[in-house]
Amino acid sequence: MSSSQKSCTIWLTGLPSSGKSTLAVLLEKEIAKRNRAVEVLDGDVVRTNLSKGLGFSKEDRNTNIKRIGFVCHLLSRNSTFAISAAISPYREVRQDVREMIGDFVEIYVDCPVEECIRRDVKGLYKKAIAGEIQEFTGISDPYEEPRNPELVVKTGDEEPAESLQKILAKLEELGYLAQNGVTEAVPQVEPVNAG
Amino acid sequence: MSSSQKSCTIWLTGLPSSGKSTLAVLLEKEIAKRNRAVEVLDGDVVRTNLSKGLGFSKEDRNTNIKRIGFVCHLLSRNSTFAISAAISPYREVRQDVREMIGDFVEIYVDCPVEECIRRDVKGLYKKAIAGEIQEFTGISDPYEEPRNPELVVKTGDEEPAESLQKILAKLEELGYLAQNGVTEAVPQVEPVNAG
Repeated sequence: MSSSQKSCTIWLTGLPSSGKSTLAVLLEKEIAKRNRAVEVLDGDVVRTNLSKGLGFSKEDRNTNIKRIGFVCHLLSRNSTFAISAAISPYREVRQDVREMIGDFVEIYVDCPVEECIRRDVKGLYKKAIAGEIQEFTGISDPYEEPRNPELVVKTGDEEPAESLQKILAKLEELGYLAQNGVTEAVPQVEPVNAG
Repeated sequence: MSSSQKSCTIWLTGLPSSGKSTLAVLLEKEIAKRNRAVEVLDGDVVRTNLSKGLGFSKEDRNTNIKRIGFVCHLLSRNSTFAISAAISPYREVRQDVREMIGDFVEIYVDCPVEECIRRDVKGLYKKAIAGEIQEFTGISDPYEEPRNPELVVKTGDEEPAESLQKILAKLEELGYLAQNGVTEAVPQVEPVNAG
């Protein structure tokens, strides 16, 4: 691989309906506006394209997360920002993925479960509470909060635009995005090769 | 996504021991020398990271190929060359992947099965002929030759360096690499954004 600009994997983790996908889409637009390559790996897209057949046991969830991590790794080491918006409930596998990737920014999308239940974007909390769905994170399956994420966004209190600004500021602080939305001028005149 | 330079997926297909991995590695080096981002998705790496648990039935092989195709798609639409070195024995799924990706260069790594058996890089032909391995492409499982690949390299007759030059010439002809190893000068001064 070769890379012209440093990139990273932005790992959004949190309960269902906490706001991960909303933030992923807003962030994708903002990064693209800065003329940087970016891909979102959302839970549903991944379950269709990488993980069909996997269930929601701890083992299957972790396999799913490792696959997402593998793909994020390939993208982000090649100058493309990779945004994961999967629940990724288990701490240990998030750590594994962090170690594999290196340039890894973990963002805890922290929203009280009561608020997630109120939103219930896909109507799945209702079914989980009624016992119609098993192994549902936050209701009948565990969610392990990050201990040392690079950032926590409180999506129960903040508007998405506010959380977005915090994430962008963090990416600037860490050197993945240039300050104030101005990307460094990197004149990429390709060298002439012998071959 | 945003992309500074046009890239593609280079899809090497052929029998086991036909020379796909050898060519993938040579090609990766050559593309990297030209200061372009590149990743190799080799069969074994993929089976570990994306497709653990899948077997070698037609359905499982095709699922594996679709996953590789999905990842190649994400990479190559973001200016990174993706090289697949999986056998990919079935024509129909290669066509599916071609349609998904668009910028797709199919290269038939054409080597007579007798020569592949003689090489037997991993010692698997021997086991397949002895009946110790089932569903082995070329022995007990089908391989469907491409009908209209962008290029055929005859790795039974040609040295790897010769096949490599043909592939590079094809990538130049198709506009994915600049002629004569000289990549176009693309001054990438990033624009100043309002945000």
